[in-house]
Amino acid sequence: MGSSGTRALARLLSRVEAGEHVEDAAGPGDARVIGLTGAPGVGKSTMTSALIARYREAGQRVGVLAIDPSSPFTGGALLGDRIRMQEHATDEGVFIRSMASRGHLGGLAAATPRAVRVLDAAGFDVIIVETVGVGQAEVDIAAQADSVIVLLAPGMGDAIQAAKAGILETGDLFVVNKADKPDAQAVVRDLRGMLALGNWDNGWKPRILTAIAQQADGVAEVIAALDEHAEWLTASGELDRRRLARAEAEIVAVALGSVRARVCAADVTGLAAKVAAGTLDPAAAAADLLGAAGFPDSTVLDE
Amino acid sequence: MGSSGTRALARLLSRVEAGEHVEDAAGPGDARVIGLTGAPGVGKSTMTSALIARYREAGQRVGVLAIDPSSPFTGGALLGDRIRMQEHATDEGVFIRSMASRGHLGGLAAATPRAVRVLDAAGFDVIIVETVGVGQAEVDIAAQADSVIVLLAPGMGDAIQAAKAGILETGDLFVVNKADKPDAQAVVRDLRGMLALGNWDNGWKPRILTAIAQQADGVAEVIAALDEHAEWLTASGELDRRRLARAEAEIVAVALGSVRARVCAADVTGLAAKVAAGTLDPAAAAADLLGAAGFPDSTVLDE
Repeated sequence: MGSSGTRALARLLSRVEAGEHVEDAAGPGDARVIGLTGAPGVGKSTMTSALIARYREAGQRVGVLAIDPSSPFTGGALLGDRIRMQEHATDEGVFIRSMASRGHLGGLAAATPRAVRVLDAAGFDVIIVETVGVGQAEVDIAAQADSVIVLLAPGMGDAIQAAKAGILETGDLFVVNKADKPDAQAVVRDLRGMLALGNWDNGWKPRILTAIAQQADGVAEVIAALDEHAEWLTASGELDRRRLARAEAEIVAVALGSVRARVCAADVTGLAAKVAAGTLDPAAAAADLLGAAGFPDSTVLDE
Repeated sequence: MGSSGTRALARLLSRVEAGEHVEDAAGPGDARVIGLTGAPGVGKSTMTSALIARYREAGQRVGVLAIDPSSPFTGGALLGDRIRMQEHATDEGVFIRSMASRGHLGGLAAATPRAVRVLDAAGFDVIIVETVGVGQAEVDIAAQADSVIVLLAPGMGDAIQAAKAGILETGDLFVVNKADKPDAQAVVRDLRGMLALGNWDNGWKPRILTAIAQQADGVAEVIAALDEHAEWLTASGELDRRRLARAEAEIVAVALGSVRARVCAADVTGLAAKVAAGTLDPAAAAADLLGAAGFPDSTVLDE
């Protein structure tokens, strides 16, 4: 892709990110979508950069969507570690895009699959979706990939903490990064113990690998495990199942995003004042709000 | 409260957690609601326990809502650190409740303010809402409190990582726990630097404190800062503003939760198959879905 193509793609993604409907964004569906998630500081950007380098060596075109929780306080100033990916900035076979959540991950949950489809249609072979894998919503976004890498590192909160954050269920590959640090083997051991408790009836037992992404150590093994997982996905029919689930999640997110936009445009402050004063029940207020947003007869049901 | 009262309260909260509408749950609104958030491993449960002890000494009744990202993989097995709060288990002036998100934080965002109102109505003086402060949704839940404590610890991801997770904006008090560890002062310094960039036009500049919660060190100072913040909240009118915002968030969450329940009960799989096959556009599918869920004429707007 030339730089004019890159700019056109960037503009298209800006429209997707803004929640706009983009025509003809249907990709052929043959890009491999890799989710990469992990706590802050485990080395996600470094690993992404190392994966890009490997895939580029193999002649693959790589798109990256880096999901950053937006921070009105810090702006983009702290995205410095994106700089580590700058080595690929002049490579036209690489496209890197930071997507900001602007305080509402629901919108991003809808925009991300659309952005994946845009990159797929633009001919990228591999699409990496990188999220901070600590919040449920962020994990959910990564979990929509074909293959999910959970990145851990010694000293950044151990495996038990990872489990508490709910990311153990979503990983196809667990990579313990910074494997030259003293506690790396302990993290591997903890992981093994926890994964042994799992139920892998669907036929894929998550792999545990170690790496030193900064030195590209172990990255070839990560790629090999991804290839193995890709083969299994196709052979088992799991790929179709995951892509169906991704489409379901996208449709629901688009629908709810649309409702949210209309609800938030309605007058909630007046209702909130009554709820805060104790003179109106929240459920009744919610029903009123839905009515005001153009959804009449929207009794708020006990779920 | 006797143990039969405790059981009745637990039952009431189970209904709230299940999304049921609970009558007469309007509290007098005079409980102090404290949000406590921080990354996994910083010592949130230990700090909560230390705060409980202090408030109990002062004769206050304390309710705790601990928001756990649910983990279908691990079940409740990893909630072992809740055990640290067990010292208060037989104290009838203390009520501790773990609320599981069951994979959908939106539901919890609606249930938490309702649960706060239930505890308020039950006569608790202080209500602590503890969340894993790493994901946007989790942070949002804690941010609905009157006063928000952001807990940090050396070695658990530094202040910059905290900023990336978007929690710097939400803190009224920043407490660096495990202050006996070598890097504690560096965390304080980083925090100071970052908070200096902030814009505190509303009149409260966040306090930075240090503590060793395990030894109850610095906990009195945290309580004093909370008292100071409570005075400012009332004097400045910020308390009313925050409670209005809380009511707004609750109404929107209840409304969207209701829509989500109806949308998810509709047939999304058939639509998803068409979207996955590229024969239906996600926005058109979303409009169809809203129609099927009983929201006719729900054109999916470009947001």
